[in-house]
Amino acid sequence: MYLSKLFIPILKETPAEAKIKSHQLMLRAGMIKQSSTGIYSWLPLGFKVMKKIEQIVREEQNKIGAQELLMPTIQSAEIWKESGRYNDYGEEMLRIKDRQGKEMLYGPTNEELITEIFRSNIKSYKSLPQLLYHIQWKFRDELRPRFGVMRCKEFFMKDAYSFDVDDNEAKKSYNKMFFAYLRTFKRLGLTAIPMTADAGPIGGDLSHEFIILAETGESKIYSDKRIFDIDVNKHVDSESSINNLRKQYDKFYAVTDDKFDKKDFEKKVNKENQLVTKGIEVGHIFYFGDKYSKPLKCTVDLQDGKKIYVKMGSYGIGVSRLVAAIIEAKYNNNVMKWPNEVAPFDVAIIPSLQKNDNSNLLKAEKIYNSLIKDKIDVLLDDTDEHLSAKFKKFDLLGIPNQIILGSKSTSDKFEFKEIDGKSDSLSLDQIKNKLLNKKNIN
Amino acid sequence: MYLSKLFIPILKETPAEAKIKSHQLMLRAGMIKQSSTGIYSWLPLGFKVMKKIEQIVREEQNKIGAQELLMPTIQSAEIWKESGRYNDYGEEMLRIKDRQGKEMLYGPTNEELITEIFRSNIKSYKSLPQLLYHIQWKFRDELRPRFGVMRCKEFFMKDAYSFDVDDNEAKKSYNKMFFAYLRTFKRLGLTAIPMTADAGPIGGDLSHEFIILAETGESKIYSDKRIFDIDVNKHVDSESSINNLRKQYDKFYAVTDDKFDKKDFEKKVNKENQLVTKGIEVGHIFYFGDKYSKPLKCTVDLQDGKKIYVKMGSYGIGVSRLVAAIIEAKYNNNVMKWPNEVAPFDVAIIPSLQKNDNSNLLKAEKIYNSLIKDKIDVLLDDTDEHLSAKFKKFDLLGIPNQIILGSKSTSDKFEFKEIDGKSDSLSLDQIKNKLLNKKNIN
Repeated sequence: MYLSKLFIPILKETPAEAKIKSHQLMLRAGMIKQSSTGIYSWLPLGFKVMKKIEQIVREEQNKIGAQELLMPTIQSAEIWKESGRYNDYGEEMLRIKDRQGKEMLYGPTNEELITEIFRSNIKSYKSLPQLLYHIQWKFRDELRPRFGVMRCKEFFMKDAYSFDVDDNEAKKSYNKMFFAYLRTFKRLGLTAIPMTADAGPIGGDLSHEFIILAETGESKIYSDKRIFDIDVNKHVDSESSINNLRKQYDKFYAVTDDKFDKKDFEKKVNKENQLVTKGIEVGHIFYFGDKYSKPLKCTVDLQDGKKIYVKMGSYGIGVSRLVAAIIEAKYNNNVMKWPNEVAPFDVAIIPSLQKNDNSNLLKAEKIYNSLIKDKIDVLLDDTDEHLSAKFKKFDLLGIPNQIILGSKSTSDKFEFKEIDGKSDSLSLDQIKNKLLNKKNIN
Repeated sequence: MYLSKLFIPILKETPAEAKIKSHQLMLRAGMIKQSSTGIYSWLPLGFKVMKKIEQIVREEQNKIGAQELLMPTIQSAEIWKESGRYNDYGEEMLRIKDRQGKEMLYGPTNEELITEIFRSNIKSYKSLPQLLYHIQWKFRDELRPRFGVMRCKEFFMKDAYSFDVDDNEAKKSYNKMFFAYLRTFKRLGLTAIPMTADAGPIGGDLSHEFIILAETGESKIYSDKRIFDIDVNKHVDSESSINNLRKQYDKFYAVTDDKFDKKDFEKKVNKENQLVTKGIEVGHIFYFGDKYSKPLKCTVDLQDGKKIYVKMGSYGIGVSRLVAAIIEAKYNNNVMKWPNEVAPFDVAIIPSLQKNDNSNLLKAEKIYNSLIKDKIDVLLDDTDEHLSAKFKKFDLLGIPNQIILGSKSTSDKFEFKEIDGKSDSLSLDQIKNKLLNKKNIN
């Protein structure tokens, strides 16, 4: 893509309404545009990043055997009355009347609807376990939407649901999802820590929020530093390996505000390992047994003919929020660097262009054509801005790799660098290999 | 995927509410499930097909240089008041009040919102032409939703918008889209005919509905048969080649009800070439000049400093409807056959399984593992149903290729057939090559 063709309204100034760096960057880099309070359009640059995140989330869900389907955004109020949540859910639920006066709503979550789908299709214990998920727009009519897509009204979310015959089986589903979440965030270049969260009426240890550290986060967290050193990539998708992983996490204190107990914290964590900071919740997994299956009468037949209420859990990842969360984690000293797997482009070609000399542009185009042949996604800056202005702009765009055609490039060696790294002088083939390696590692 | 694991509620009986074959098949094959009147969940099988269609639509839009973004489903009423459509649009528009009493709506289309995005970002003729599109859920509160996803309330649609400086340039954008549409439908295995449609107040020849023939269609059509022989694949994406393509279509009479003129039809089309039948609209492209840019004050500066209202067109493809449309076109004599590019699986392995003999299952699993290694997407029927019952089931699922492990398969030669074709006895390598070739051709 040539920058002059890209639909990307870059802003010189930081809009006053943007209070945190991800919101500022997303507006300045032309990734999003607010269409009304708390509701955003995703412009091409932001859209590309979100789609890549969505795809990673999808692949990691599929890997553990979860099946994708898609529930609609608009739901009937009926099933929410069955579960009792139609009254319990406050004004955050966007309630709608259709032309016939029927009560509808824009789904803020999908426990009821997935239970309804499940109960009309699955009758026997033989069909369990089941893991079903979808990635769909949700709506919560936030009273005070803020921080851009971090806390907005219409947001893109992956929500999965597990169905099992008993608590013991349900725990296995839960742990598989725990594992998939860690792998997902790792691929996104994030260190997300599973923090014990309030388990609600069920109790037990089956509720975790996945939190990434960020000064601007809305969750206060208390943890043992050493929890950051656990490496999910040392584990595989088997019951024993995942149990082992869970045990490692259980060794270290890590809780959010709700569960914080000062005495407990000081007893369990040595002074030098204590970490008290803020974070952003990017995922939440939660086991709730028959909370929905009971009121919605969702049963399966056991081998002996008895009927039991199916045991359920739900598992959310905020896909649109993750775009902002990655920025909070990776935008430092006014330089953004997207992790390779979610970068809007693999590499930028940044030529110095003079009015009466198109030699650099020709060189840039030659490199461009060669790279796209190898399916490397390139953004070529064909504008006539000064090189220093271009660099500033690319610090916003965050494309992780740069080929710079300025004084340091010759006819067959080009200046190549990671956006926050040192320059190398490389041939086109060397650059290509580097870029392809980065793609393959991921 | 093993069939016993797939979340696919197959129905033995045809539900009474389904009047047309696509609706019947989609319910029976467990592709969709109605959640409330005219609103459907897409179960894994249906979801896979829809996603593949979406991806083909996307690729063909990208090929002509259209850029993807994503507008939200919920819009403010404000811009619809600016354009005047807030009052004009009838009860099909789902109107919503948020918790603050602000008037919102669920977008039935996006001319206003894209114009608003454009006007706040693009100021100069130098940035034109622009082609922008998104693929997003829309809502129309149909009085009588019917025919399953063919005429439902919540539907998935690709809508593109073009922005040009004058009518002449706009025509080029229009023609590019005309070309992209023909290529898209061709890849989907459909013969879609562009039919001259009502151009509205602008007049001219820049409004086409793309129609596929189907007895159950809601559009009555009148055409010259020979129009079906034009081959888009003989044309390339250049102005002259596309003009030539448009001319070929213009030679033959092809209109919908609105534009039908009996005298004209009989004068222009020989008796033997006259075709009067019904069809399904799967796309609509439409040029409307400054219909929205004028009330929304969307201007660009020309070279001489004058401001002009930007000239716009809009271009829709019904992605969710296409799932049903392909079924209407391809489901014949109770056998469904998905075109390879959109098939939910590339191939089905159908073994005859006896209670006390697992040799066929082992053989099936060996073939399965070998195929998935080559990224061939396989469905293995591991249920203990009788072979004849399995065949009936697969006639519904429509997976285009089958490997049958019954009496005709030996230890190293297997019965392979297209679902509606003749059996061959082939080695695993031969089968693999056939399947990979089918994938590559597409």
